[in-house]
Amino acid sequence: MNTNHLIIAAGIAEIAAGCISMGLGGFLAGESETDNYKAYEANEYHEVEVMPESELKEVEDAFLSLGVDDKLSHEVALQISRDKDRWVDFMMKFEIGLEKPDKGRAHKSGLNIAGSYLVGGLIPLFPYLVTPDNKTGLIWSCIVTILALMVFGYFKSKVTHQPLLKGTIKVTSIGIVAAAAAFLLAKLVS
Amino acid sequence: MNTNHLIIAAGIAEIAAGCISMGLGGFLAGESETDNYKAYEANEYHEVEVMPESELKEVEDAFLSLGVDDKLSHEVALQISRDKDRWVDFMMKFEIGLEKPDKGRAHKSGLNIAGSYLVGGLIPLFPYLVTPDNKTGLIWSCIVTILALMVFGYFKSKVTHQPLLKGTIKVTSIGIVAAAAAFLLAKLVS
Repeated sequence: MNTNHLIIAAGIAEIAAGCISMGLGGFLAGESETDNYKAYEANEYHEVEVMPESELKEVEDAFLSLGVDDKLSHEVALQISRDKDRWVDFMMKFEIGLEKPDKGRAHKSGLNIAGSYLVGGLIPLFPYLVTPDNKTGLIWSCIVTILALMVFGYFKSKVTHQPLLKGTIKVTSIGIVAAAAAFLLAKLVS
Repeated sequence: MNTNHLIIAAGIAEIAAGCISMGLGGFLAGESETDNYKAYEANEYHEVEVMPESELKEVEDAFLSLGVDDKLSHEVALQISRDKDRWVDFMMKFEIGLEKPDKGRAHKSGLNIAGSYLVGGLIPLFPYLVTPDNKTGLIWSCIVTILALMVFGYFKSKVTHQPLLKGTIKVTSIGIVAAAAAFLLAKLVS
């Protein structure tokens, strides 16, 4: 008989709760980003409408700051401002520094986070399902988790073009430190 | 005698573990963002060096897409490309669409997330510290958490310029749904 059922039940509950709350949190954050972009965009459209001179000046200033001379900056600003959509697009990118968020970003973001939480939670929990007691479970959970951290660190470094060995060691050691600290703190308070 | 000690111990352990792992996760994500920016930036510097013509063409194209005519696009591109730093800055903003991450972004991001997790975790846990049993604790925990969600939803809507009532209701109801789903799932597996 498997004596790990308490750990498994608590683990599944934690993963489920985390998936839902983190996923919805990610969804809300993604939505806020879209809302934020729209609010700034509406504001730029408004400014372009009611104070075109000062907005034109801002486009000119952007080019001056890029090392373009006075005359040319003025001409380019004039040409960009002929089309309000392009004008606002330019201001969003250059003045505000915001990229248009993808459509469906909030949903994707929420699902990504929930999925990551699910996978990341099942990895350390899984060994308890296939081991006879919590001591063996803990040992295998540590081994499997460290291996998973190494694989994850490796691919993360690859995708972000970081040195592979350094990146792998970093992610793995941070994961181990986090798990160890959490384990010791849990011991301390219980 | 307070009979909530098991809930309090488990809660503190969960909060501590979450703070550490989410905080370190946020730190790593912030660092990845900085690394990512640097990798793209290095690549742009390289391209500007080894294939200036095609990079110049990309600057021109950016202006054409903004509605600037051929001749002017070419002139502006030439002027921007006189200074390599500005040239690369322009490419990063316009072609890649990346903003230079703040210095210390990774640390700030990690601390923000850990702090939010701590505060967000202590709110539903706190009532158990001041109530005599877990039934009263649960009731007060729900009340306090719903109030906190409302306050948070209100200020979040204010900061992101959303309709206040709609935003407050949305955050509060999503929070309640997440908590209820997690609670039911935990009941189910235990």
